[in-house]
Formats: sequence, C-alpha cells, structure tokens
Amino acid sequence: MAEKIKVAVAGARGRMGREVVKMVLQDEQLELVAAVSPSAGPVDAGILAGTSACGVLISPDLETALAAVEADVLVDFSIPQVGYENTVTAITHGVRPVIGTTGITQDQMKELDKLCQERGIGALIAPNFSIGAILMMQFAAQASKYFPHLEIIEYHGDQKLDAPSGTSIKTAELISEIRPELRQGNPNEEEIIDGSRGGYYNGFRIHSVRLPGVFAQQEVVFGAFGQTLKIRHDSYDRAGYMPGVNHAVKKVMTYTGLIYGFEHIMD
Amino acid sequence: MAEKIKVAVAGARGRMGREVVKMVLQDEQLELVAAVSPSAGPVDAGILAGTSACGVLISPDLETALAAVEADVLVDFSIPQVGYENTVTAITHGVRPVIGTTGITQDQMKELDKLCQERGIGALIAPNFSIGAILMMQFAAQASKYFPHLEIIEYHGDQKLDAPSGTSIKTAELISEIRPELRQGNPNEEEIIDGSRGGYYNGFRIHSVRLPGVFAQQEVVFGAFGQTLKIRHDSYDRAGYMPGVNHAVKKVMTYTGLIYGFEHIMD
Amino acid sequence: MAEKIKVAVAGARGRMGREVVKMVLQDEQLELVAAVSPSAGPVDAGILAGTSACGVLISPDLETALAAVEADVLVDFSIPQVGYENTVTAITHGVRPVIGTTGITQDQMKELDKLCQERGIGALIAPNFSIGAILMMQFAAQASKYFPHLEIIEYHGDQKLDAPSGTSIKTAELISEIRPELRQGNPNEEEIIDGSRGGYYNGFRIHSVRLPGVFAQQEVVFGAFGQTLKIRHDSYDRAGYMPGVNHAVKKVMTYTGLIYGFEHIMD
Amino acid sequence: MAEKIKVAVAGARGRMGREVVKMVLQDEQLELVAAVSPSAGPVDAGILAGTSACGVLISPDLETALAAVEADVLVDFSIPQVGYENTVTAITHGVRPVIGTTGITQDQMKELDKLCQERGIGALIAPNFSIGAILMMQFAAQASKYFPHLEIIEYHGDQKLDAPSGTSIKTAELISEIRPELRQGNPNEEEIIDGSRGGYYNGFRIHSVRLPGVFAQQEVVFGAFGQTLKIRHDSYDRAGYMPGVNHAVKKVMTYTGLIYGFEHIMD
Repeated sequence: MAEKIKVAVAGARGRMGREVVKMVLQDEQLELVAAVSPSAGPVDAGILAGTSACGVLISPDLETALAAVEADVLVDFSIPQVGYENTVTAITHGVRPVIGTTGITQDQMKELDKLCQERGIGALIAPNFSIGAILMMQFAAQASKYFPHLEIIEYHGDQKLDAPSGTSIKTAELISEIRPELRQGNPNEEEIIDGSRGGYYNGFRIHSVRLPGVFAQQEVVFGAFGQTLKIRHDSYDRAGYMPGVNHAVKKVMTYTGLIYGFEHIMD
Repeated sequence: MAEKIKVAVAGARGRMGREVVKMVLQDEQLELVAAVSPSAGPVDAGILAGTSACGVLISPDLETALAAVEADVLVDFSIPQVGYENTVTAITHGVRPVIGTTGITQDQMKELDKLCQERGIGALIAPNFSIGAILMMQFAAQASKYFPHLEIIEYHGDQKLDAPSGTSIKTAELISEIRPELRQGNPNEEEIIDGSRGGYYNGFRIHSVRLPGVFAQQEVVFGAFGQTLKIRHDSYDRAGYMPGVNHAVKKVMTYTGLIYGFEHIMD
Repeated sequence: MAEKIKVAVAGARGRMGREVVKMVLQDEQLELVAAVSPSAGPVDAGILAGTSACGVLISPDLETALAAVEADVLVDFSIPQVGYENTVTAITHGVRPVIGTTGITQDQMKELDKLCQERGIGALIAPNFSIGAILMMQFAAQASKYFPHLEIIEYHGDQKLDAPSGTSIKTAELISEIRPELRQGNPNEEEIIDGSRGGYYNGFRIHSVRLPGVFAQQEVVFGAFGQTLKIRHDSYDRAGYMPGVNHAVKKVMTYTGLIYGFEHIMD
Repeated sequence: MAEKIKVAVAGARGRMGREVVKMVLQDEQLELVAAVSPSAGPVDAGILAGTSACGVLISPDLETALAAVEADVLVDFSIPQVGYENTVTAITHGVRPVIGTTGITQDQMKELDKLCQERGIGALIAPNFSIGAILMMQFAAQASKYFPHLEIIEYHGDQKLDAPSGTSIKTAELISEIRPELRQGNPNEEEIIDGSRGGYYNGFRIHSVRLPGVFAQQEVVFGAFGQTLKIRHDSYDRAGYMPGVNHAVKKVMTYTGLIYGFEHIMD
C-alpha cells in the first residue's frame, strides 16, 4: 500500500478549515499531522471539527507546527492577509501549499513559483475548488461562441454583502474572452424600476438574487431563435468543495511549481 | 344541441386577433359572424388568420359590421386608444364585449358597467387571459404570507421596451397586499456593478431578463431556512392565451354587468 | 413577558431529534426541560446536538423523564414503533404531543383524541412539518382543476430505498381529489426502454430521480396549450423542518384535541 | 457581392419543409429555386409556407425539378423512406444534399460519400440541426467524466409515440463513451409504483415526461456531494432548427464528401 499523504491544515477553526479537517480524517489515503489556529486553544482538531477526537491538538502557530512534524501538504483557507505569508512558510519547510485564499498578487505568485521551483515541489492557489462551478463556467464560455445572447442569474444567502458574486464576475470574464462583442437588448429599453434589468457587463446582464436558505447557485441562460440553453450549478454547503480539495491535495504531490486555478489540475 | 355563440372579432389583423379568429373557427360551439380591421381589405378572415377560408370577409368598420349581423360577443385585442370606443359600440348593439386592451380608466369602467346593466348583458375586461399566469400570481401571493423573503425573475424577448413587465408588477402588487412588511437583504449590501441586485419594490427585488427566443416567463422564488419554493409560469406563444379567451366568450353570456379581471370568472 | 413553553424531546439522539434540541435552545420563548434517548447515555443534550452544553442530561426513559419535570409539550420524531406509546405516555402526564412519526392508525388516532379531550389538552400528529412542501401540495392540487395534464418529478438522495417518495404519493392523492379524471398521453405510446414513462398514478406519471447531494426536492409540472406551470419545492436539510416544528410547539398550546396534518394549524 | 446560394427544398409541404422555405426566403444570401412536394399541387411555395408569394411554384417531382433549374443545395426533411433516394438524385445532379431524415444505413452513407467524392461536392446528413441540443449533449458527456452520477429528464408533447426520445438516447450514448462505469442508486431500492425510477440505461436512468404545450426539452442533472450541475435545452418550435439548417446550407458549399452529424460542421 502507498504511504499516506501527511496533511497540515491552517485556519482550522474557520468554517472551511473544519470541513478540511473532517475530509482529511475520512480519507484513508490522507493523514492529519497538524492543525493550526491562533485562537482555538489546544483542543483536539477532530472535536473542533465536529467529529471524533483524532489525537492532533490545535497548534497556535504555523511555523512551529511545520517545524515539529513532517508534512507533505498544507491546506490553507485562512484570511487573505495571512495567505501569502503562510504559503512562503510552507514552501520554506518543503510543504506543498494548497491555498484557497484570494488576494495574492501576480508578483507574489511569480515569487512563490520561483520558491517552489527551487525546492522542487508543487503548489496550488485556487479561488474555487468546486468542480461543478468550474465546469459551469467552462461550458458557459464555450456556449457563448454560438449563443452570444445570454444573461447570468446568481443566487446567494440574503446576508451576503457584495453583488454580483465573485463567481459570476469570473464567469463573465471567461465568456467575454470568447463571445463575439454584442450589446444585447433593445437600445430604446426603459427601466420603469431602476435596476430591474440587472448589472451591465460587456453587453450582457448579471442578476443577483439574495434569499435565506440559499448557499450558492448560478445559472447562465442563453437565448436564441426558438430555443434556450441553461447551465446551472447549485452548491448546497461548504462540504461540496471538499472533493475538489481532496483532489488537489493528491495532485499537488505530482508536479513542480505553482499552478493557479483548479481547472488546470482537473484531468 | 345548444345554439352556437356568435362571435365578432375586432383587430382581426393583429397578432392576437388572428389567433382569436382561428380559435373561434376551431370551436364547434362558436360561430364567427364578423371580423373587423380598418387596414386589411376585404379578404377572407380565415385566410388572413393563416387557416382555411371561412366565408367571412374582413369589414373595415366595427359599427357597420355589428349593425349588419347578430353578434353575441365581441372579442377585442386592438390598441388601447380604440378599446373604450369599441366597447361602447358593442354594448350599444347588445353585444357582450370581451376586451384584452389595457388603459381603460376607473371612470370609464363605471360607465361601461352602467351601460351593461341597462342592456342586461355581461362584459369582461382583462389585462391577462392566461390561466397559468393568474394561478402563478395567486399562488405567489398566498405563499408570501408564510415566506416573506422572495424575489421575482421575469423573462421576455430581447426587443421588449419596458422593464419590469406588467405581469411582474401586478404580481408584486398582489404579494404586497398579503406579505408582512419586510426589507429583505443585508442593510450594508453593496453593488459592485450598479443594478445587479435588480429593481426594488416594497422590500423585495424584481429582475428582468431579456433574451431572443423567449416569449414570456416568470418565476417567483421564496427562500427560507433550509428550503426554497418556486412558482414558475412559461408562455410559449400567443396561442397560450386562447383557452382563456374561449372560456371568457362562453362565460360572458352568463352574467350581467362589467367584470374586470379574468380571475373573477374562473370557476 | 409570557412564560416560556417547557419542551421535552424524545428520540433526542436521532438526526431530527438533535435538530429539535438545537431549535428549542435557540428560541427564547421555549425552554428545554427534558431530552430522552434510551441509548445515548447521560450526556448533556446540547453537546449531543452539536451545540453548547445546556444543563439538561439525556434521560433513558420517557415515563421517568416526564414524571420528573413539568413539561408542556413533547416533541417526538422517534421510530414509528414507539410513536403511539410515547404519545399516550405524554397525554397521561398532561403533556401535549407534537409527533412526526408516521404509522399511527385511524383507530389509534381516535383513542388519542379522546385522551386529549379528557385531559383538556392539544396534540398534533403530522407526517410533514415543511411549510413549503405543504404549500407545494396545496397549490398543485388547486392548479390541477384548471390544468389536468401534469406530471410529478421528485428528487431524493441516491441511497433512498423506496420510490416514489411519500410526499409525491401524498401530492398525487390530493391532486386526484380535485383533478378531472383523465388518462394522459398517447394511447398508442410505446416504451423503447421499460419504465422511461415513469410510474402510473390515476392517469398521470410520477418520476423518481435519485442522486447523491440531493436532500428532498419535488416539482409538479402542468402542461397546456402554449404554456407550462411549475411548482417546485427544494429542501436542503432537516433544519428546514424546524420552523414548522417551532410553529407547532406554540400552536399546540392553544387548542384541545388531536389534529392530524400540519396544514390544519397553519394560520 | 457574393453570388447567392441556390436552394431547392424537398418535402416542402411538411412542417419542417415550410420552415425551410421561409428561412431561405428571408436570407438575402440564399435564393429559393425549387420546392418539391408530390401532394401539394402547383401553388406558390411562399404561400404554402405561410408567407408572401415568391414566384416559385411547387413541383411534384424532385428529379424533374432539379433537371429544370441550377441548384447548389437540396434541403430535405422528408420521410425516411425517400431520404436516401432523394440524396442520390441530388448528388447525381451535382446538388449538395443537406438531409434531416434519419434511417440511412452505414452502407448507404459509404455509397453517398463515394458519389460525393466523384462529383467533388459536399453533403451533410444530420439527425439534429439544433446547435443548442448538440451543445447540451457535448457538455453532458464532458461533465459525466467528473460527475458519474446523473439522470436524464426529457419533455415532449403528449402525443409523442416513443419514449425515451431519440435525443435522450443519443445523449446517453455519448455519455457512456466517457463516463466511468457505475450502477447508480441503492442496490436494494424498491419501486412501490412500477416504472417510477425511469428507464435504465447503462447504470443511470432516463425519464420521459409527456405534456401538451411542450415541444422538446431535455435536462441532464448531475449530483455529487453538496452540489448539483444541470444542463438544460428547451426547444420551443421547429423554427429553432433553422439557424442550424442555414449554417449547414452555407457550410456544405465549402467541403467535399459526406459528413454525418451537425457537430462536425460547427466552427
């Protein structure tokens, strides 16, 4: 049998971090060797994650934790401010980072890639680990070549602060790289109620629905003479990202250098 | 066997008028006795409607047409400007009007009701003859009592001038009569792209999608803890209104006075 | 301020029971006074439910627990076999039962109603506490009066044993009470693949989709000339039933006798 | 300006044939030179198609018609029995066939390809000219690589004879070429109503909904841990196929030999 991949988890007290801990504990090919949170105290990481005790106590500091164990991979969904720093720390210890935080700059990525190359290890930074969301975006971009008339409707919980969602903007960007330029709709269109036609992006519209009970959903609707094509992705909870994180942890063991974007490690 | 209901059609050259002519010709309980259009010329009404010749030539003038035949019911989907006038003409000739034009004022309706009462005949004015659309609106209003968090998404063809649609505004009004007052969403919400959150109506949002190939669709989405309720109506073409018009033609024979709104003649 | 309603929870170790305990602990108008599970051991009920300690230890036996505290309401989602017995025990102690188990017979219900009347207290037995699911069923039944052509599509997790779901059969029954009798479809229809047309029920069809990641969803689709009406309810998790259970706990305090069916206590 | 493409239409009285005639008359790059129907009589093809007179009278015989005019392309949606024969006739006259009939055998296709190569002209045979339907099938096949748990739900008019639809079977075949082998669902699953779980195909299920008012719709639903991906295509009428036929007429001018399947001429 192959040796287990040894995983450290940063941000282990966060909502994503706890899901990652659970995911690692459930996969026989993975082994949890460290879990870091500056604020949780020295509790068992399994208990903190809402499952059974696993024998790994939460460490307050990543540097110390990585120095104390032999980890293969660090999974980090902590806040953007510490994401870059954590990634450097991991690479320095020869630990492959799988990073879900956004906000790392182009220059920082070049630097991280260089560090990875020097150590001969892989790293992954991805804003989205949902295989379904990535397929939705890819299909939408492909379809826009043939169906340039489209609108995006995205649904999130009613307490979300920003609209439209990051995923919908990312989708709109990918579509715009492929879709023939076109300003949709009637040029003399008039809004009786301001904003009813949604947010304008490069000739098409994005609509943001906010309702309690919804986690994250998006539909891209394409309209043409006599037909409609719809591509829809519904996420029900954070657990839905875990198959992607699991895949990334295994994949990052197999290459050298920094890869940005989960779509590039899908087989 | 019961006698047939004798039907006259105004605006017989319009898109709705031609559907009405076809519908009347296809129903054995109905008989087409007159079809009026000022601009069509004296062609056969069946041919103009895209079906077989029926022996009724288009008349240029409603008054003359109603004087020449014994009609029971006048169906009129012509432009708002002539709707009121046509209705008066019909009632004067003892012909029951079934009117699909909007823009008739409250005062005019009172006057029309008085005329109907005097003649002892019925009349119907309805902005919407789609049974499905009416059920959608009624169900949405009922649901809003239990699920006050909702948004409306409506879809129409990309050349439509106004947004949001009349049906969505009517739905919003009916909901507002029942729904507990509530301003949905995060009070600190921020639109990165203007209008992405849709049009604001009484605490909730209306989103107008405009795409080629779509005729008329609307979905009301209700969100609550752990669940979503959706009520959706899709109209594919004008023909979808004909079962409602057919029902109205038969129903208007059975009562006296003016009724406003198709929902009041549904059994 | 009104006195709190004192709630006991049977089946406190089950998936529904833990949600009920959490719901009671979160509502300031409710007070958890007992939680029963024969197999959990004397742990804190809050801890067992995955939230903070609440000071109520799990009791192994309902009779003993209800004798030891003053409870107003017993919530019981335990297995059908003990449902009737638990209900009798509750009423005997003057505790109003809110019961989510199915399988109680008509004769047993008459007996329970009699017991409630003697004690002057209320009781509720309901197979479904989801307000959204109940509205979906009611709207579907109403719509079938006007749109007798319909099909039901229901979605559940891929490990569910029975098809179609209990909710879809209940929906079909309610529709059949109202819908004009009609055998839908082409009488000469032929299945190239057996079962592709779904399960036959009283002239229409029920389709059961089973997929991982889905909790409980159902759509009733009505088709008519030129239009489609859809009523859809999506449940994302057990927590979605809690607003209904919460409403029931408060409502059962206000009447005398047994009520069967949550729809009868919706305002 | 480029010369117009001269188009002949077989089966000009059929529902698809009339749409093709209309489409050709509306495109300034195309010219209708012949329209064939053995049963229509010598009426104007434009009138028969429900639009204005175009000066081309219906011919009763394809051979005679193609001998009388210089056609570049023959569009044929007539019944399968005559499809092969018509195609041979067209190629013999140096006219490029665009064929929508199904039921042409592999051997016949080889023969037709040979004839095309000899004449140095192109030909297209395609069971489906809907760009949207083809994208739906392609996306579904791609997604099944990552989401092997899926079901297909297809909707057609209630008078359709066969279930499941040809498109759904084609989709299932394309998916099966890519999807990892898997028998979905609970092995101990039980149907309370026969057929409720749909038609079995290679480990997954196909559900056929039949309702009045529906033309042709299909949804492929993929389920995974915490997420659902849906790809849906709705066709509202035959006109929806015309952009594809239009594209094919122009494309068939640019290559030599027989191509089977519209997907191979999409850019």
